[in-house]
Amino acid sequence: MPGLVAVDWGTSSLRGARLDEAGRVLEEKSAPLGILSVPNGDFAAVFAAQFSDWMTKGALCLISGMAGSRQGWVEAPYVSCPAGLGELVRHLKWIEPGRIAIVPGMSAEQGVVPDVMRGEEVQIFGAMRLAGLSDGLFVLPGTHSKWTTVRGRRIEGFRTYMTGEFYGVLSQHSILGRTLEADAPLDEAAFLRGLARSGEGGSLLHNAFGVRALALFDRLGPAQSASYLSGLLIGEELAREKPGRDVILIGAPSLTARYALALARTGAKVRTFGAEATWAGLKALQGEMT
Amino acid sequence: MPGLVAVDWGTSSLRGARLDEAGRVLEEKSAPLGILSVPNGDFAAVFAAQFSDWMTKGALCLISGMAGSRQGWVEAPYVSCPAGLGELVRHLKWIEPGRIAIVPGMSAEQGVVPDVMRGEEVQIFGAMRLAGLSDGLFVLPGTHSKWTTVRGRRIEGFRTYMTGEFYGVLSQHSILGRTLEADAPLDEAAFLRGLARSGEGGSLLHNAFGVRALALFDRLGPAQSASYLSGLLIGEELAREKPGRDVILIGAPSLTARYALALARTGAKVRTFGAEATWAGLKALQGEMT
Repeated sequence: MPGLVAVDWGTSSLRGARLDEAGRVLEEKSAPLGILSVPNGDFAAVFAAQFSDWMTKGALCLISGMAGSRQGWVEAPYVSCPAGLGELVRHLKWIEPGRIAIVPGMSAEQGVVPDVMRGEEVQIFGAMRLAGLSDGLFVLPGTHSKWTTVRGRRIEGFRTYMTGEFYGVLSQHSILGRTLEADAPLDEAAFLRGLARSGEGGSLLHNAFGVRALALFDRLGPAQSASYLSGLLIGEELAREKPGRDVILIGAPSLTARYALALARTGAKVRTFGAEATWAGLKALQGEMT
Repeated sequence: MPGLVAVDWGTSSLRGARLDEAGRVLEEKSAPLGILSVPNGDFAAVFAAQFSDWMTKGALCLISGMAGSRQGWVEAPYVSCPAGLGELVRHLKWIEPGRIAIVPGMSAEQGVVPDVMRGEEVQIFGAMRLAGLSDGLFVLPGTHSKWTTVRGRRIEGFRTYMTGEFYGVLSQHSILGRTLEADAPLDEAAFLRGLARSGEGGSLLHNAFGVRALALFDRLGPAQSASYLSGLLIGEELAREKPGRDVILIGAPSLTARYALALARTGAKVRTFGAEATWAGLKALQGEMT
C-alpha cells in the first residue's frame, strides 16, 4: 500500500500529515485556514499551497471534516447510519479521481430529528484501529460532543450535544459571564458539584441560573463558577447517556481529562486517543479501498 | 389610605405609576433609565427628575425590581421563602423614612443551590389581589422565567429558568443563528413540534443541535427554526414543572401567549395578567403597612 496524505480540514483549522505505508506519521503541518478562512473560496489554491510538495506522483490524499460540507470545497452528502468504512469508501467525493477525495460525514435519525457529524466518523474508525476494537461506546467531547455506538466495526448511531458551544455562549454572552472566569484552570471540587447537580434531574435552564445565584451568595468564586458550569454541562450528557461500561474518549487532552474525571464516577473504564485517531482513520479508509 | 407612587426599576427600564386611594392608575410614565443606565450611579437624581412632581407632601413611593440589587440604588437583601407581604414590609429598605422605600427580593433554596428573584414577588402579590386568589401556581415568563408556588397568600418557593436568555444567546451567538430568524412571528406548528420534542426527555444540549440538523436537511426554515427553538425551551420548563392544574401567567402578552398555547396542551387552565400586576402588588404592600 502506498503512502497517504491525510488531511483534516475543519471549520477553523487545516491540518495534514504525510503517512508511510504502515501508517506512521512522517511529517505534520497545520495552518489557521479552516473552511471559513479560505480566501475567495479558492480551496484548490489553499490545498496546493499547503500540500503540493507532498502530492508526488501516485500519491493519494484523503480529506475529512468540514471540507465536505455545503460551505466547504465540494459537498459530500452524509452517509446514513449504520455504516462502516465500506460505505464511506463508496461515497468518497473525488476532487481528482484516484488522487484527492473528500470523506463524507454521517447522519443518524433520532426519532423524527436527524443528527450529523463530519470528521468524527474518521476519528472513530481510527480509534477502533488503534484500540483493536470492533464494538463499543466512543465519545468525542468538543464544541459539539458526539456519543457514538459501534458494533461489528460499523457506526450504529450517535447523538450530538452542544456542550462546548453552550459553555462558550453562556460564559461569554449571558449573565453568567459577569461572575465567571471562563479560562480558569479546572477546580475539581466545583466541577464535581456541577456534575452532581445535573445528576439530580433538574433542567439545564434552571441549573444554569444556579451558577448566578451561588455567585450572588458568595458560594462560588469566578474560577469555581467556570468549573461548576462545565460540570453541569458535561453532567447533562452523562445523565442522559448513562454510560455503564467501557468508553473510548477521543479528543484534546484538556477536554478528555474532564470527561475521564466525570466517567470515573460512573464506574466506566476509559481509554483515550488524541489527534492520532484522525490519521489512523484515514489510513484505515485507504486500506478499505484496496 | 393615601395614594401611592409605584415604581418598577429594572435592569433596562424605569417605569412608574401614580395610583389613587383605591389603586386605580391615574398616570403612568417610563424611561430607558434601567439601573445599568443611571448616569454616575446617581439614582437620587434620576428618581427626582422622573418623579418629584408626583412626590407631593405625604406621598409614599414603593420601588420594586433591580433597584434593590447590589448594582442598584441601595441593596435590599433577599427575604427567604416562604414569605408573605408582611415579611416584605418588615424588610423594606427605606431611602427616606416613611416616604421612599425599596422592596426586597426573595430567595429560595433548591437543595443546596439558592434561587433569587427581584420584582417578580411584587407582581405575584399583585396578581393574587387581582385574581382574588390566595393559593396557586404563578408563572412569570421572561429572560429568567419564574415558576412560583403560593399557599395561604405566602410564596412558598420558586424556580428560575433562563429561558429567554438562552433563546437570546443561542439565536444570536451560536451556530443556530445561521439558519434562524430570531424575530420571526410565531409559527405555531413548529413551536408545538419543539414543545413535543422537549417532552420526550432528551437533553436540551442534544435537542438544540436538532435545530441545526433539521435546517441542514431543509426540514425547518429560518422562521420555523425560531419557533421550534422557542418550543424546545418552553417545553423544557413544562417537562420539569408538570403543571397539572390552574396556572396564573404574568408577563408581556407576546410571551404569555406562547405559554398559554403550551399550557393548553397540558390541560391547565390559564389566567393572564400584565403590567397591572406590578401596580396592584405595590398597592397591596402599602395596604399591609397600615
